[in-house]
Amino acid sequence: MSTKPLAIIAGVGAGTGLSIARRFAQGYNVIVLSRSSASIDPVISAVEASGGTAYGISTDVSSEASVTAAFNAIKAKYPGSPTAAAVFNAGSFSRAPFLETALEDWERISAIQGRGAFLFSKATIPLLLASKHLEHPPTLIFTGATASLKASANFSAFAAGKWATRALSQSLAKEFGPQGVHVSHAIIDGVIDIPRTKEVTFDAEDAKISPDAIADAYWHLHTQPRTAFTWELDIRPYVEKW
Amino acid sequence: MSTKPLAIIAGVGAGTGLSIARRFAQGYNVIVLSRSSASIDPVISAVEASGGTAYGISTDVSSEASVTAAFNAIKAKYPGSPTAAAVFNAGSFSRAPFLETALEDWERISAIQGRGAFLFSKATIPLLLASKHLEHPPTLIFTGATASLKASANFSAFAAGKWATRALSQSLAKEFGPQGVHVSHAIIDGVIDIPRTKEVTFDAEDAKISPDAIADAYWHLHTQPRTAFTWELDIRPYVEKW
Amino acid sequence: MSTKPLAIIAGVGAGTGLSIARRFAQGYNVIVLSRSSASIDPVISAVEASGGTAYGISTDVSSEASVTAAFNAIKAKYPGSPTAAAVFNAGSFSRAPFLETALEDWERISAIQGRGAFLFSKATIPLLLASKHLEHPPTLIFTGATASLKASANFSAFAAGKWATRALSQSLAKEFGPQGVHVSHAIIDGVIDIPRTKEVTFDAEDAKISPDAIADAYWHLHTQPRTAFTWELDIRPYVEKW
Amino acid sequence: MSTKPLAIIAGVGAGTGLSIARRFAQGYNVIVLSRSSASIDPVISAVEASGGTAYGISTDVSSEASVTAAFNAIKAKYPGSPTAAAVFNAGSFSRAPFLETALEDWERISAIQGRGAFLFSKATIPLLLASKHLEHPPTLIFTGATASLKASANFSAFAAGKWATRALSQSLAKEFGPQGVHVSHAIIDGVIDIPRTKEVTFDAEDAKISPDAIADAYWHLHTQPRTAFTWELDIRPYVEKW
Repeated sequence: MSTKPLAIIAGVGAGTGLSIARRFAQGYNVIVLSRSSASIDPVISAVEASGGTAYGISTDVSSEASVTAAFNAIKAKYPGSPTAAAVFNAGSFSRAPFLETALEDWERISAIQGRGAFLFSKATIPLLLASKHLEHPPTLIFTGATASLKASANFSAFAAGKWATRALSQSLAKEFGPQGVHVSHAIIDGVIDIPRTKEVTFDAEDAKISPDAIADAYWHLHTQPRTAFTWELDIRPYVEKW
Repeated sequence: MSTKPLAIIAGVGAGTGLSIARRFAQGYNVIVLSRSSASIDPVISAVEASGGTAYGISTDVSSEASVTAAFNAIKAKYPGSPTAAAVFNAGSFSRAPFLETALEDWERISAIQGRGAFLFSKATIPLLLASKHLEHPPTLIFTGATASLKASANFSAFAAGKWATRALSQSLAKEFGPQGVHVSHAIIDGVIDIPRTKEVTFDAEDAKISPDAIADAYWHLHTQPRTAFTWELDIRPYVEKW
Repeated sequence: MSTKPLAIIAGVGAGTGLSIARRFAQGYNVIVLSRSSASIDPVISAVEASGGTAYGISTDVSSEASVTAAFNAIKAKYPGSPTAAAVFNAGSFSRAPFLETALEDWERISAIQGRGAFLFSKATIPLLLASKHLEHPPTLIFTGATASLKASANFSAFAAGKWATRALSQSLAKEFGPQGVHVSHAIIDGVIDIPRTKEVTFDAEDAKISPDAIADAYWHLHTQPRTAFTWELDIRPYVEKW
Repeated sequence: MSTKPLAIIAGVGAGTGLSIARRFAQGYNVIVLSRSSASIDPVISAVEASGGTAYGISTDVSSEASVTAAFNAIKAKYPGSPTAAAVFNAGSFSRAPFLETALEDWERISAIQGRGAFLFSKATIPLLLASKHLEHPPTLIFTGATASLKASANFSAFAAGKWATRALSQSLAKEFGPQGVHVSHAIIDGVIDIPRTKEVTFDAEDAKISPDAIADAYWHLHTQPRTAFTWELDIRPYVEKW
């Protein structure tokens, strides 16, 4: 048992979530929430391999009961530990002509980007508000995408979800900033260099975003003092067209 | 029975929807969809009083079954009539500190601004695509609000819903514009002058938005030729701070 | 001599300015300001051919002396006539890699989009403020472009100028709206169908913007009552990618 | 003489420029450009007091001749030194009702935010392009303000200038990112805690932005690898209304 502060990350796997977990594990006990233990296990291993500790909880962020159970488990596991950071990195993708987009697809995205982001915020903000006097202001970061700013053809469901998450993050930043909680939103505009995108290739080197570089940016956001909070930044590879 | 084109309006009552219905009834048979017949009846009366025809169908736009039933009723009532215009004017409001915003509130808004807007678009776009060779390009207009652009503190659920609707409208505009369907989004930034806002008063005259003026703007959008489509415009009273 | 209201248009030629002049000449005496009489003459002819009256003044909008002289000439020609509308349609184009963009190019654009827009506003706003009790609220409209929203590579000077004009229009809308003057900005996003763009061709019909359709949109803006002012709208052909 | 990389900062004084100079002097020889030596001297002293080296050149960034002379002096002083970073922090302020804003005010702002930003970019981008193989990608950062995003009433000249700078920065980011130069724009949204703002007081602590925190954010931008460039971030105190 430890009173080392916690960093709670929703939505992990072999990509950005893993890098964020490893980066925040340099200072905190990391909790990772993800639907499947298959997603969680490599993150735990990676964190432990770099000397940190991580604890995984299979969680469906779109389910109120599942989120409640997860946060009860966190409290049981780490009673009295303050929460220093929370990252909402969960997502669900859809790309299809509108007339071929099923209601199920719309609802699947909305369940994560809307209800899931809402439930995660409801669970973490009270913890963050209670976590004063840490080295850095308590921080809640949301991962956005190109589609958070532009709703292109064939991305109706995905963009609607991403815009909803971005709206939530802005409203929370305005409401909880004055209470000392730093809420941020990062626009990840490009292909991330993770196992799932191996088949996507570019002529230029470094044309995919390094997930470790995203994690460094999130860590910088977390370390900003309250006199200088950033709500939003964009992150893209140097060769990206935008 | 008539082959006069149809204008289908979701979300009516004593306010904007009524004015839009009356305006579009100058050229079209108007169909109004609203949850309660108490909302529908005054619209029918107002349209008829100004010489038009309107047909109301009690509809829950957030329910797939209800929307399907409504469009089946439209086809039965007006077989062969092309659809010239569709307006998504439905909405649901929420204003509360985030930690007092219940999941039910979030879901109530999302059901209308997300799923409802999606279902209405799925039902109307095929009709609009089939409605070529009318006087004006077939048009789908969404009603937005101040919160479509800004997510203020205490408006998390409302803004998330409005941003989702705006994203949907932009994606649809990009996908269906090239197929000749005009998709627009109007930012209504101010208090509308309707019975429900009677208690809101201003020092200046004309400080609330006339719903008839909104209807005129929507009609202008509808009459734009395909060489000059507007996706978005803002509408606010001259004294509004923004 | 007439007390018919005036519409003063800066920046005319064979394109948008001509269509705007012809449209506003249906209700007003039109004044056209342009650098060369070669630009002015066809506009006068077109207005007169459609039954209106137009008066041209060779003006360099980027020169304080030239603008002062032009407005003195207007007062001499039409003493006592109220000004109902003013349109800033002047522009100067530049597209070049940044390191090949000369200071002269930067300054040429800035002189029109910055200083010119400023001088035209300084000259027209007092006239518009004095023009109460007309049929429609006195209106000042600025013509923007795709580059008013996006600063693409190779458009540094052009975009900087267009963003400056847009900023000016927004500040003026906020300051003078409450005084009854309607200030608008139109984003023209596409190729306009004018003699100069004859060589630009598209597969689709109607793929260029009709300048008459732009003029109709400007007229709609002008006719909006003060309870429902639009600051900004975008105008693009249905097939435009955006 | 040294081949330590250079950081060139335009616009310094007792505020943000000083903090940026001190931060970048931890790794680089700092050059500061400012109109008056009265602005430069305290920056040199502060940098030297913290163990760095700084070299000041009285420069009017709005004058092509003055900028040319400054960069000739830099080359003479540090022949062969690569340029790692350049920061455009110059500015000029104006707040006045539009009709009381003189052409001279408009031109004064435009000379700095427009021509000055252009000239500084023209001088530094070739140096940055030539500076490959440094520890961090060569970086050009522009300082923006609240008025870079919103053109409020009474800020016409200031906002037009700030929007022009922001447009320039976006166009440069898109053009030179693919060539390995990182161009960023920071929205400083709040009162900075510098001698000039001593009389501005707030009830809350830390309600003004620490210039050192701005400098830390600029340094983070500079250290981002090319797989993860940020173009824009906002910086505001936790209690700021926005």
